[in-house]
Amino acid sequence: MSKSRGHGSDNKTEWSESTLDPVLKRFGERKESFETASGIVEDILYTPEERDGFDYEDSLGYPGEYPYTRGVQPTMYRGRLWTMRQYAGLASPEESNRRYRYLLEQGQTGLSVAFDLPTQTGYDSDHPMAQGEIGRTGVPISSLADMEALFEGIPLDRVSTSMTINATASILLALYIAVAKKQGVGAERLNGTIQNDILKEYIARGTYIYPPTPSMRLVTDTFAYCSDHVPRWNTISISGYHMAEAGATAAQELAFTFSNAIAYVRAAVDAGLDVDSFAPRLSFFFVAQSHLFEEVAKFRAARRMWAKIMRERFGAESPRSWTCRFHTQTAGVTLTAQQPDNNVIRTTVQALAAILGGTQSLHVNSKDEALALPTEESVQLSLRTQQVLAYEMGVADTVDPLAGSYYVESLTDQLERRAFEYIERIGEMGGALSALDRGYQIQEIHESAFRHQRQVESEERVVVGVNRFQSPTPPIERLQAIERAETERQLARLASVKRDRDDSAARATLARLEDVARGSENTMPAILEAVEAYATLGEISDVFRGVFGEQREFSPF
Amino acid sequence: MSKSRGHGSDNKTEWSESTLDPVLKRFGERKESFETASGIVEDILYTPEERDGFDYEDSLGYPGEYPYTRGVQPTMYRGRLWTMRQYAGLASPEESNRRYRYLLEQGQTGLSVAFDLPTQTGYDSDHPMAQGEIGRTGVPISSLADMEALFEGIPLDRVSTSMTINATASILLALYIAVAKKQGVGAERLNGTIQNDILKEYIARGTYIYPPTPSMRLVTDTFAYCSDHVPRWNTISISGYHMAEAGATAAQELAFTFSNAIAYVRAAVDAGLDVDSFAPRLSFFFVAQSHLFEEVAKFRAARRMWAKIMRERFGAESPRSWTCRFHTQTAGVTLTAQQPDNNVIRTTVQALAAILGGTQSLHVNSKDEALALPTEESVQLSLRTQQVLAYEMGVADTVDPLAGSYYVESLTDQLERRAFEYIERIGEMGGALSALDRGYQIQEIHESAFRHQRQVESEERVVVGVNRFQSPTPPIERLQAIERAETERQLARLASVKRDRDDSAARATLARLEDVARGSENTMPAILEAVEAYATLGEISDVFRGVFGEQREFSPF
Repeated sequence: MSKSRGHGSDNKTEWSESTLDPVLKRFGERKESFETASGIVEDILYTPEERDGFDYEDSLGYPGEYPYTRGVQPTMYRGRLWTMRQYAGLASPEESNRRYRYLLEQGQTGLSVAFDLPTQTGYDSDHPMAQGEIGRTGVPISSLADMEALFEGIPLDRVSTSMTINATASILLALYIAVAKKQGVGAERLNGTIQNDILKEYIARGTYIYPPTPSMRLVTDTFAYCSDHVPRWNTISISGYHMAEAGATAAQELAFTFSNAIAYVRAAVDAGLDVDSFAPRLSFFFVAQSHLFEEVAKFRAARRMWAKIMRERFGAESPRSWTCRFHTQTAGVTLTAQQPDNNVIRTTVQALAAILGGTQSLHVNSKDEALALPTEESVQLSLRTQQVLAYEMGVADTVDPLAGSYYVESLTDQLERRAFEYIERIGEMGGALSALDRGYQIQEIHESAFRHQRQVESEERVVVGVNRFQSPTPPIERLQAIERAETERQLARLASVKRDRDDSAARATLARLEDVARGSENTMPAILEAVEAYATLGEISDVFRGVFGEQREFSPF
Repeated sequence: MSKSRGHGSDNKTEWSESTLDPVLKRFGERKESFETASGIVEDILYTPEERDGFDYEDSLGYPGEYPYTRGVQPTMYRGRLWTMRQYAGLASPEESNRRYRYLLEQGQTGLSVAFDLPTQTGYDSDHPMAQGEIGRTGVPISSLADMEALFEGIPLDRVSTSMTINATASILLALYIAVAKKQGVGAERLNGTIQNDILKEYIARGTYIYPPTPSMRLVTDTFAYCSDHVPRWNTISISGYHMAEAGATAAQELAFTFSNAIAYVRAAVDAGLDVDSFAPRLSFFFVAQSHLFEEVAKFRAARRMWAKIMRERFGAESPRSWTCRFHTQTAGVTLTAQQPDNNVIRTTVQALAAILGGTQSLHVNSKDEALALPTEESVQLSLRTQQVLAYEMGVADTVDPLAGSYYVESLTDQLERRAFEYIERIGEMGGALSALDRGYQIQEIHESAFRHQRQVESEERVVVGVNRFQSPTPPIERLQAIERAETERQLARLASVKRDRDDSAARATLARLEDVARGSENTMPAILEAVEAYATLGEISDVFRGVFGEQREFSPF
């Protein structure tokens, strides 16, 4: 070993030749190549040498300031912890309400509503299409009566509520506003989010109803309406989560999410809205996958990218338009049915990635979710995961603790570069919608998913308990079941709503809605009128189906 | 906000005044002050400004090179993962043997033996002092017959074995060598570690037998013996773990461990050994506590400190004498009996700290260990924790991933500075033994423990499920129990050993050992002779008790 400085090497090249190479020659490495889940090749060592030309103020800056790499607020978790928001929705509004109250008692700080598929696709619980699906993936909501039962005893001026709802987002938002009104809470005091991100539904999640153009109109209608009437509401949660679950890498998740976001902003600007009137209420939703450092880098890159996009591309002037605020959920696809306790380990590290990445709110998946909706005990453990991380591990003590790490900064830069390359390619195709028409994003995601699957099959990628370290483990004893009585109660309430409401008044609101849909007026006021007259979610969606038509599947090829 | 650069602030002061202060004035922070478990006050933000004068090569350098901050080997986990070594010892040698085989089948890569208290304090299982303690905290070993049963069917040239044994360390090492010999494995091929760290027993753990001076002789005898005959054996595992469990902060753990290490090295050098003949086989044992970043910083500081101590203080010339190789165990004191599943979250983050800190081997505590010895299922989950972290999370992909983080480097520097201040103070008192006589370390640890306890009681320090977020959780159903039959088998074997051995030969070896103990010759060969003649651990310890005397308690005040 050459020790010109009296001890170690003078630079990385010298180290590599004198110290690393002899060991590599003799013992080699465990794998041929180390790369992140996104396929970024990882060097064995990161040092200041790779950071030549790095400018702290330009690249990172300060939290609460452009380009927001280090965080959207100056105090971050020293001021207030992220919102602990477990996604939940059970067989009926009543059972879901019990779960929400339980979670709030256990220390949860925000609500997150999961809806069943009929609700997401505009069918009432009594529709033939709803058979066998009522309450299966979340709560069924058909009318204002259901929504009242869902939030019974929960003062809507005191919680923030996130609703995972897309094609029917404006109906659910209207229902929420209507319940608040009955509680005496004005819309201007409501806090929360609707997912309302239809583009990613076409790409990955599949719960769309209408073709893209009218769908985009429903989205921009909520932007405009909320800007005037529900100013604290996050009008959209532009979501990479489901694309990631379908197989997108971290770079793809960033790229496709922001390409969709660009499409929404463009549509709203084209519809005549001032960018700074709605952009501050745009929010995002990302996955926290398993590669701890790539995920932290992803969240940091996301903030820097969005700040640049909004400021440079759209000329937004309000700093609040530049900030990428996001919710995070741990990666459902990484949950295994085998050895389900291993899921607690996975979700702990994934949640940590979200926190070190500066998320605004967090859902931690439960260990039994590969098998069923989570039980009360398993969801308690998910919440405890957040609390242990928040209070015991010191990870919320300082802002952006990994800043400066040669490795993490390198990953951050690389993810940003790769994602911007994708965004440019999509731009060249004419934007997210045109790319979607060509099946571009779907195909890219399929390729990543295929590559991942092949790596698991070849054991190049180890999944503990699945392709290695298998062992018989006792099955989870208690799974969450759907009680028939809950479904019956739901159907009974819907029948009584239809029987007891002023039917001609309800019909009149639907007729009015149809007029609005055929014209160009904002749809939100008419939807609100309809839900307040107890017109149902299915009836309202049928009006739109009649006017807008229905969208068939997008081909990936 | 002043935006002279077109966007963000030009420096931290500007940011603090223009962006941070207005938010602080309006909303404040969650707590009055944020500090690590060691009481290091944490700044809200770390930037390059605090790193003025930082010299990469001096402070960090390259893995496998002085000062080893970034790791003891150049390839670290890319070459080979840490050794997954779950500490285990059950009611009898047979039951422990079954557990070891189970763990090896499940993918464990090293063994770690827990002994019961009688074995640790030099009493055979049939001694009245052993009543009620046989097999309670680990396996009982009274004679070579027990040791043979313990390693039945486990080829000792193919595993590495760590033994947590101190006052009787040389006896257990001799027993291990004797079992290997019966397997046809020469001592020169053995890999493993004896804890053999008597100084920390006086400070924190309490399983000492003899006064310090003869105890130190037994330790240096193993250094000299192994240097000649068991060259791959780690002759000592100088342990901060138990002091940390007693309440020592991270800085104290570093300081007291290295002060003890300095005393061992000094004693060995004073006994005439060449420092480079034994120093390469010194190893260390640290806790992984809950403060993720302070712990990572601690491990990094430990390597840099030990390299400086060995090179600068002792003039060691072999780079292998400079490297701080260490085993890590997650923090037993953080396990709670309430909501035991929360322990899985805690140990996951603690294990992550050890890995990001570059540990050589790792034990992850089991969720039920606050209640009993772990069951097979719970220890499987501990091993799975290591495997999920090793294979799924990308945390073993690059060497020292947190290097460069402004925050982590600042903590590393501060811990090193604080620990060296303590070491100097202890040096001024005349070293670890003199300080111990004055109760210094014990008193410092008591003060830290008291401070921690007060913080928990005032809820300044939140322990989830204990002082906040309490909830009734179902108790763990299956706990590990000690079967009476196992204890009876142990006693029967000991009786048959004493009955069947060549008693006069055994007595002769004990008489020879007494001569050696009264003189200055190395005790190891005589111990080895005695165990091979089936003299028991209790008999050998009684010889030493007769010659060396017994040590009473050290007063903390």
